[in-house]
Amino acid sequence: MKFNPFHQKIGIIGGGQLGKMLIESGLPWNVAYNVLDPDAHAPARRYADTFIHGPLVSKEHILGLAEISDILTYEIEHIDVETLIELKALGKRIIPDPEVLRIIQNKKFQKEFYASNNLETTQFRIVQSMNDVASAIETLSGEKFVIKSAQGGYDGKGVWIVPKSEILNGKLDLPPMEYVVEEFVENATEIAVIVARSQDGEIEAYPCVEMEFDPKLNLVDHLFAPANISSALEDSLKDLATRAVQKLDGVGVFAVELFVDQSGAIFINEIAPRPHNSGHQTIEGNTTSQYEQLNRILLNLPLGKTDLLGPVVMMNLLGQEGVEGDYTLTGLEELFKTPKANLHWYNKTSTRPGRKMGHLTVRADSVEIALQHARKIRRALQMKPFTR
Amino acid sequence: MKFNPFHQKIGIIGGGQLGKMLIESGLPWNVAYNVLDPDAHAPARRYADTFIHGPLVSKEHILGLAEISDILTYEIEHIDVETLIELKALGKRIIPDPEVLRIIQNKKFQKEFYASNNLETTQFRIVQSMNDVASAIETLSGEKFVIKSAQGGYDGKGVWIVPKSEILNGKLDLPPMEYVVEEFVENATEIAVIVARSQDGEIEAYPCVEMEFDPKLNLVDHLFAPANISSALEDSLKDLATRAVQKLDGVGVFAVELFVDQSGAIFINEIAPRPHNSGHQTIEGNTTSQYEQLNRILLNLPLGKTDLLGPVVMMNLLGQEGVEGDYTLTGLEELFKTPKANLHWYNKTSTRPGRKMGHLTVRADSVEIALQHARKIRRALQMKPFTR
Repeated sequence: MKFNPFHQKIGIIGGGQLGKMLIESGLPWNVAYNVLDPDAHAPARRYADTFIHGPLVSKEHILGLAEISDILTYEIEHIDVETLIELKALGKRIIPDPEVLRIIQNKKFQKEFYASNNLETTQFRIVQSMNDVASAIETLSGEKFVIKSAQGGYDGKGVWIVPKSEILNGKLDLPPMEYVVEEFVENATEIAVIVARSQDGEIEAYPCVEMEFDPKLNLVDHLFAPANISSALEDSLKDLATRAVQKLDGVGVFAVELFVDQSGAIFINEIAPRPHNSGHQTIEGNTTSQYEQLNRILLNLPLGKTDLLGPVVMMNLLGQEGVEGDYTLTGLEELFKTPKANLHWYNKTSTRPGRKMGHLTVRADSVEIALQHARKIRRALQMKPFTR
Repeated sequence: MKFNPFHQKIGIIGGGQLGKMLIESGLPWNVAYNVLDPDAHAPARRYADTFIHGPLVSKEHILGLAEISDILTYEIEHIDVETLIELKALGKRIIPDPEVLRIIQNKKFQKEFYASNNLETTQFRIVQSMNDVASAIETLSGEKFVIKSAQGGYDGKGVWIVPKSEILNGKLDLPPMEYVVEEFVENATEIAVIVARSQDGEIEAYPCVEMEFDPKLNLVDHLFAPANISSALEDSLKDLATRAVQKLDGVGVFAVELFVDQSGAIFINEIAPRPHNSGHQTIEGNTTSQYEQLNRILLNLPLGKTDLLGPVVMMNLLGQEGVEGDYTLTGLEELFKTPKANLHWYNKTSTRPGRKMGHLTVRADSVEIALQHARKIRRALQMKPFTR
């Protein structure tokens, strides 16, 4: 076989579960992937054509990946963007564009981008140290605030929700760095919209999903689609998400997280320039998964349809309290007895509390029934400490 | 991670497209596969943990595969069954059982098995050479007969449909060996039923699919589900297929091919003890694919539901006339523009006319519409000779 669109090698910076599922989606077309990851046991390693073992912020390793790949993409934001910008200048195809990543990597840049492009977002102030937070909130409203480190936050880390009283009492104790201080949306409905935009500018938004967070871990506990919102609100949210990706001039798959407050006002929270936890359920729940969609975009093929096939729930399977390191997975029977239940297990060799170890999706005639099934399956699945 | 059901290594004898799709279906669970195949470019090779390059009838190579695998299965019948029987005696888990394979490998044994177990099949005679065919058909009826070599037939090879006149004229010229001579079912509707049976004896039949053959190649051109038959007939066919697998005491996935004649009488034609071309569309068209089902069976997990999600067409993509060896694949646009169309391309490095190079499935609101889409896509897809 000689050159055809599938014959291009894709280099993925990052070899976690997102990379793994991207590869899985490309196997029916025989697309080959190279993977860079610092973890020798990275989930995507087994099916990589070439695995490069090295840091995601290492110029040398990213250049090495670029050399053996026709197209570069990334499944994590915390990578060496300057090297990507240099590679782009040399003509390398990088999707999404590193200039988009540069904005998204920094939460200050992200917020300023929304504000300057009339993309509805919560009011915010930028502060250069914790000492400035008290004066910043004088011009904001509410009894709670969200404080985010401008750089380096990830997976619920680097984000704090703090009561006004605690700020005014001077009880806050965070390391010295730049922060975004935002108004907190009380009792928000949290929505995600996956937006796909092709190299030709074709754009498709997936149906809204509604997310329920684990309050302790600040991670998605589960999500469901269709979201429990009016179709007018669904349209507004998809429109806002679509406008954001268009303004970014982004090519790729983008996860747009949004808030709806009690009055129905909508706010863009964050964008991830990659497939996302909030789109896992598209594998079984939608005509085209977010992973296939990214493969189509990378290979410059037309976008697939994004419609929902029916009610679906996605539930994260996080490392349980009290189990660290080696583990064994038990209680699979319930999962395999449940119709239209699917497991994705990420092949991480060790567990720790709160670590994303896998997820499950359940389809049913209603979100409620799917959720009941998913809860029952998750209760049965146990990661047990492994003892010889 | 330590022992759990997914942690067993599966050894597959044969590394063609069936092995490839079996592996793809196990990746979300991180199942590891070893593959034995004589072709250094076997489709399943890329994602095999260990690839053993060797003949499928070589004792030494099958023992090598067994040594590094917890469970053995096969994706082709023409393998060394005696070695499997020895391995079974030593306690190796082999699914399906090699005694089942021994019956199926030989078309005489298969026919005699159906006849002796009251499984409706066409009338037949066994002959030891071509010279005996004329006398054999004296006791059969019809104007055409099917002649099959008892051993070694595969993928439409080793099967001839011959008019009575040609046999009586002595025009038939086939190599000296044992043959099955069967009555030919005129204007038959050809149906396949995939039957899955677990290690615990749990059994599930997939909905009937109706097959249209390419008359020249004697290969499936396309198939569709639901079949265009009454529900009473659907039930009878599923019942016959199920009884056949139960009588075989088979564990695994079995493709049962059946005929329906113009009067509505049904006949079992052949059984393949593995996932089959006639079950490819279960990947997109059914709750559980034939490949996931076999993985569940191999890992001793409960069977999944087999229900059809909606009308589906599967169309084979065969090597085109006039193109041999190196090729390039063009005309993908139509495929990617069509909603609910999926391509599986088998990663064969060279083509030849009639070779199974890939398949596509299309889902739509009706079989008719799906078939229109599939035809349009196939017309657009072209394998062109590759010239530098």
